[in-house]
Amino acid sequence: MTIQIPSPTPADKFSFGLWTVGWQARDPFGDATRAPMDPVYALERLAAIGAYGVNFHDDDLIPFGADDAVRDGIIERFKKGLADTGLVVTTATTNLFTHPVFKDGGLTSNSRDVRRYALRKVMRNLDLAAELGAKVYVMWGGREGAEYGAAKDVPAALDRYQEAFNVLGDYVVDRGYDLKFAIEPKPNEPRGDILLPTVGHALAFIETLDRPELVGVNPEIGHEEMAGLNAAAGYAQALWQGKLFHIDLNGQNGPKYDQDLRFGAGNVRGAFWVVDTLVTGGYDGPVHFDYKPVRPETDAGVWVSAKACMDNYLILREKVKAFRADPEVQAALAEAGLPDLAVPTLEAEEGWRGLLEWELPDVDALAAREVAMEKLDQLALEHLYGVRG
Amino acid sequence: MTIQIPSPTPADKFSFGLWTVGWQARDPFGDATRAPMDPVYALERLAAIGAYGVNFHDDDLIPFGADDAVRDGIIERFKKGLADTGLVVTTATTNLFTHPVFKDGGLTSNSRDVRRYALRKVMRNLDLAAELGAKVYVMWGGREGAEYGAAKDVPAALDRYQEAFNVLGDYVVDRGYDLKFAIEPKPNEPRGDILLPTVGHALAFIETLDRPELVGVNPEIGHEEMAGLNAAAGYAQALWQGKLFHIDLNGQNGPKYDQDLRFGAGNVRGAFWVVDTLVTGGYDGPVHFDYKPVRPETDAGVWVSAKACMDNYLILREKVKAFRADPEVQAALAEAGLPDLAVPTLEAEEGWRGLLEWELPDVDALAAREVAMEKLDQLALEHLYGVRG
Amino acid sequence: MTIQIPSPTPADKFSFGLWTVGWQARDPFGDATRAPMDPVYALERLAAIGAYGVNFHDDDLIPFGADDAVRDGIIERFKKGLADTGLVVTTATTNLFTHPVFKDGGLTSNSRDVRRYALRKVMRNLDLAAELGAKVYVMWGGREGAEYGAAKDVPAALDRYQEAFNVLGDYVVDRGYDLKFAIEPKPNEPRGDILLPTVGHALAFIETLDRPELVGVNPEIGHEEMAGLNAAAGYAQALWQGKLFHIDLNGQNGPKYDQDLRFGAGNVRGAFWVVDTLVTGGYDGPVHFDYKPVRPETDAGVWVSAKACMDNYLILREKVKAFRADPEVQAALAEAGLPDLAVPTLEAEEGWRGLLEWELPDVDALAAREVAMEKLDQLALEHLYGVRG
Amino acid sequence: MTIQIPSPTPADKFSFGLWTVGWQARDPFGDATRAPMDPVYALERLAAIGAYGVNFHDDDLIPFGADDAVRDGIIERFKKGLADTGLVVTTATTNLFTHPVFKDGGLTSNSRDVRRYALRKVMRNLDLAAELGAKVYVMWGGREGAEYGAAKDVPAALDRYQEAFNVLGDYVVDRGYDLKFAIEPKPNEPRGDILLPTVGHALAFIETLDRPELVGVNPEIGHEEMAGLNAAAGYAQALWQGKLFHIDLNGQNGPKYDQDLRFGAGNVRGAFWVVDTLVTGGYDGPVHFDYKPVRPETDAGVWVSAKACMDNYLILREKVKAFRADPEVQAALAEAGLPDLAVPTLEAEEGWRGLLEWELPDVDALAAREVAMEKLDQLALEHLYGVRG
Repeated sequence: MTIQIPSPTPADKFSFGLWTVGWQARDPFGDATRAPMDPVYALERLAAIGAYGVNFHDDDLIPFGADDAVRDGIIERFKKGLADTGLVVTTATTNLFTHPVFKDGGLTSNSRDVRRYALRKVMRNLDLAAELGAKVYVMWGGREGAEYGAAKDVPAALDRYQEAFNVLGDYVVDRGYDLKFAIEPKPNEPRGDILLPTVGHALAFIETLDRPELVGVNPEIGHEEMAGLNAAAGYAQALWQGKLFHIDLNGQNGPKYDQDLRFGAGNVRGAFWVVDTLVTGGYDGPVHFDYKPVRPETDAGVWVSAKACMDNYLILREKVKAFRADPEVQAALAEAGLPDLAVPTLEAEEGWRGLLEWELPDVDALAAREVAMEKLDQLALEHLYGVRG
Repeated sequence: MTIQIPSPTPADKFSFGLWTVGWQARDPFGDATRAPMDPVYALERLAAIGAYGVNFHDDDLIPFGADDAVRDGIIERFKKGLADTGLVVTTATTNLFTHPVFKDGGLTSNSRDVRRYALRKVMRNLDLAAELGAKVYVMWGGREGAEYGAAKDVPAALDRYQEAFNVLGDYVVDRGYDLKFAIEPKPNEPRGDILLPTVGHALAFIETLDRPELVGVNPEIGHEEMAGLNAAAGYAQALWQGKLFHIDLNGQNGPKYDQDLRFGAGNVRGAFWVVDTLVTGGYDGPVHFDYKPVRPETDAGVWVSAKACMDNYLILREKVKAFRADPEVQAALAEAGLPDLAVPTLEAEEGWRGLLEWELPDVDALAAREVAMEKLDQLALEHLYGVRG
Repeated sequence: MTIQIPSPTPADKFSFGLWTVGWQARDPFGDATRAPMDPVYALERLAAIGAYGVNFHDDDLIPFGADDAVRDGIIERFKKGLADTGLVVTTATTNLFTHPVFKDGGLTSNSRDVRRYALRKVMRNLDLAAELGAKVYVMWGGREGAEYGAAKDVPAALDRYQEAFNVLGDYVVDRGYDLKFAIEPKPNEPRGDILLPTVGHALAFIETLDRPELVGVNPEIGHEEMAGLNAAAGYAQALWQGKLFHIDLNGQNGPKYDQDLRFGAGNVRGAFWVVDTLVTGGYDGPVHFDYKPVRPETDAGVWVSAKACMDNYLILREKVKAFRADPEVQAALAEAGLPDLAVPTLEAEEGWRGLLEWELPDVDALAAREVAMEKLDQLALEHLYGVRG
Repeated sequence: MTIQIPSPTPADKFSFGLWTVGWQARDPFGDATRAPMDPVYALERLAAIGAYGVNFHDDDLIPFGADDAVRDGIIERFKKGLADTGLVVTTATTNLFTHPVFKDGGLTSNSRDVRRYALRKVMRNLDLAAELGAKVYVMWGGREGAEYGAAKDVPAALDRYQEAFNVLGDYVVDRGYDLKFAIEPKPNEPRGDILLPTVGHALAFIETLDRPELVGVNPEIGHEEMAGLNAAAGYAQALWQGKLFHIDLNGQNGPKYDQDLRFGAGNVRGAFWVVDTLVTGGYDGPVHFDYKPVRPETDAGVWVSAKACMDNYLILREKVKAFRADPEVQAALAEAGLPDLAVPTLEAEEGWRGLLEWELPDVDALAAREVAMEKLDQLALEHLYGVRG
């Protein structure tokens, strides 16, 4: 069976950050290999390849420290670009990490002045996000952490982080903005250890906020895999807790520096299960690629890789659907006991008292049951390979 | 300054599992090197070296499948051993991982019969835990996971996990047991990926339960470090969320198999910061060592290593206190801005409206501030080395 | 293009260890889920699915400590099984890790008696290996290492390791055996750190031996990936140094415990590049799968997974060939500069003196060259997905 | 026992790179926090804190593309600085990674022109290295690698790497320079995978060169630990093979981005065993710190951290000596069997024939031997803590 791979269209809700396609490819050991990219050029190219949306950090669009006149001019031109291309602003976010002022953090900097300045920077960009119609505001706290144990008092930092989210929650509610926040966890880099290092830590933190309903997560595949975690399981728990407000898809090869490879590169099986989790779990928000075209590439490679992210998502989406629809898969799922997992363990009204009356099973017979897990996984792999049908 | 290292006493609340000192040292590539250990012998030796408490899985004490008469005899003899030695049962837990019946999980097995059997096994041991005076019941779900994507439906499994905790919560409340649960997260091993892989994921899950107040976490240093995470930061977030119900201390050397080295071995600086977090954060529960004497050792090495776990905690506790009391450290903390981090970012009643009126600071001047982080960390290291004073 | 996937035949030289299909699925936290497997049954089933060869540790075939009569009977029966099934013994190896006597190592144990005993155990099994026609003798030093720094003197241990290889080299040469050795590196597990942890360390060690020509490497995908290394690059360096005497294929998901998943599971892209390296590099030895059917499986799953290892190799082999034959790939390789990499950097006879006369290029123009790496990698991925054609 | 920590003096042979203390603290997510550092200022400060030597990449000292007049002026001024401060140039190296021309590698770039240009750049700096009296020329191939499988043909790249070392070997011999090369391995970053990723791979590669005697390794603690390897064991194998030509000491916290923490930070126990390996193994070359003061620091923190690197080495050196001199340690080493490991396994002239006549020992009794590894390691830890005496 050769599956038909559709071309990307806006209906697929694919989105890209200006900082991804526009990345100049400066790394810790090397200077930029690509020139700065005009945001309107980015819009045009993204529209041409079938993207739906665009995202930005404030400083991606408007140079840090630009005066109001410059800022307004840039925004007007960008709005025109959006109108001309039909692209939508799906999310926005704040750069609280590039400027040296944030060298020890933004919202949890040890310096109160920096924290106040950071809040103001977020608020200003929330205004722009609302104006441009973004529905989700991403919060990546890349500098919120430390290299050394005593350099950050974690409980105090969490107090300040909580305070910041509470203030910002007040702000969007009081302003009447139709915006929710999505925390993007990351375990490390650029800090030795970052606060809220995984999807789990962020989900737990959210429950302590004044307005937990306003805040969800924006898991990035690569960030979870940097901690050796199963990214799909993280997306699944976020969905299960009603908190998957946005997604960042890309590629990574295990615990090492943040690679931000194009989606599909890196852990291919992991990508298959992430897409399966999203499709099965009914995620219907934008499909955002937070990746970086590899440094040796020129502009041509930027657009090859951007297009490839979308193609790979569509390929995997078709494969996942074919996998779930395959009768042999369904038989293997049954043999592996999956339908049974969906059944509550207790009867309705049974309770622990009822369970105490249940006659215990023959444990050895139960231990000897078939599970068909190798069969099931091999079927999945053959769908991934495209050799079934 | 040479610090005085006290000897362990019951007031230090050190505890050990029967499965740790009694580990027979069977590993994936090797047969047992040590004979089974009589639990009463374990009590005697633990008491002799200054321990306070003991823990067990049901099957550590009572062989799987033992009949009631055997069981009762074992329990009576163990109670006598407790009385004779003065040791306290601090926690208990259920073995839902050794027997093949749990081969695809216990409380989240795909087999409903296994799940029901697992619940009954937990309930029976909760009775014993309550009878023996344990205050915390540890839940380590080592088999609750999968190697392959489709073999476990994560949302369904989380439904079942939630159901299990709700039933067990009913059980202890209805029975009137003075017991709380502590979830012990682990990212992998013996399963490819385990549900609730980190402290964060467990804390997030707890918030979805019927009785979140009954459930906390039992973080293990090694388990967090297997995911490359900063263990102290995990303990800190758990404390901050009021959920550090119990602790498992041991040693690990980064992402690899679960080493369970004695506490102090492995990541020494990580251990220093964990103890700092516990002391600073006011943790006052049992200090439990979940480690394994290395396989080549005989019984002599078992007790050397058990004693060393306690000694190392005491050494680090003294060092941490000396570090926090050191005037030069306090000066460096001030220079690094830590006191400022404890101050709310906004004035009382200021709100975002007030913040909008705040005059923005000179960002470049703020960026140039001193932070003293290298100085501070070097002071900590010199306390660890024992070369200051 | 749907590629045709052939069925495994002996011409493909697929081989399996008795310890893989016969693994009883005992792990650090669980008892065996499968019964011991009769070696002759293993031969029959392996032959039935198209395997070519079989391997064993001495103790896989002959229980540790069996007397000569028992041993001879077992060997006779096994030879008959080989004759009946047509399977070939491709390699053999020694179990120097299961018995407690090897608790601190075999050939590098701190105990001289253990080292001598280990050598004798190897020598005895070399006789059997030669008798059964094995051409390669695998040396996996799983216990040759330590958890703690002072517990193993690394230079002294390397002296002993070297001595052991020299003695064993004498032995096979003096006996006239047509056998070579292949060192299988592994970074850790069951020891905290193992000597010769990667392909590189083993290759370097070999050059210090009396008979380096007798010794090569047997890299295992999972072992290299446990160190976060690119397995294909390791195979490539071993091939480049003429030392790829044997291969162990399986699946792993990054730095964690040794998973030994069936080949194809785990890092799928890594597997693609390993097969590409083997095919492109002209490796023509046995294709050995050193994996373990996952613990929940029954006997049925054992054979599903064994067959799948072979199928996956064949699928990837076809894909790799299609990739290399694809004109668009060849164009992208040219654009990426690969043909240029095959050209010596200096002209014949140019030498450094000639190079000094070379006019330096326009560096900025050279920096701006196209590389087509994203295009090339996307083509590879589409071949892996099976969506090109 | 409080050990006396000496102050650093030139006799300790401590050295630093201009790129370490002069690092401007630009990272993948942040702009520089520190101004460029005048090399002569670096010399003065280094001399003031007791350093012995200094190192540089060509571009650290002389801006890329500087004309000859500028270059000569810089060199003269630097020489004067050396004379004024008494600092020695211990090594030099080439920057083949910052400029975009090296975006896909230097000596193994797919572009032959780049490779030729890279060789010329190395040759020119070899002249300067020789002129300034460096004895070792470090070769770190940070860009020699790839993110994607097909983008680099590993055997062809190794051919080119080999060719480059052979040409450069000719160059230094023909020029009569008293210089050796030291390869600095690294597993990844800034490339997805780097050629010669560990000490082992580099040692193996060296044996294939025309002049293996001219080339050794320069292992960096952090680089080995990024692959989860035991750094001390890597240094030990390099020493054992006579190839430890230089060392790079720093700190790292396991597999993640390259942290380059000051020596002593990161894995403290690992640092203890590295120093033990160097002292015990008789390494007597320069002790070089290849670290980066953390980004939030100002100039003050640069010198605090540089001084701390040296102090920590001296502290650990004293501890290691005290550990080895401690009679209780020596008793534990004996109990653990270490002296026995230094004894050849076979008698002189015994050979395998003699060994065959040896009466096999009682294996179970041998298995039950004491090993004292926990005791030994606890003694080491107590020396590290500074609590013995």
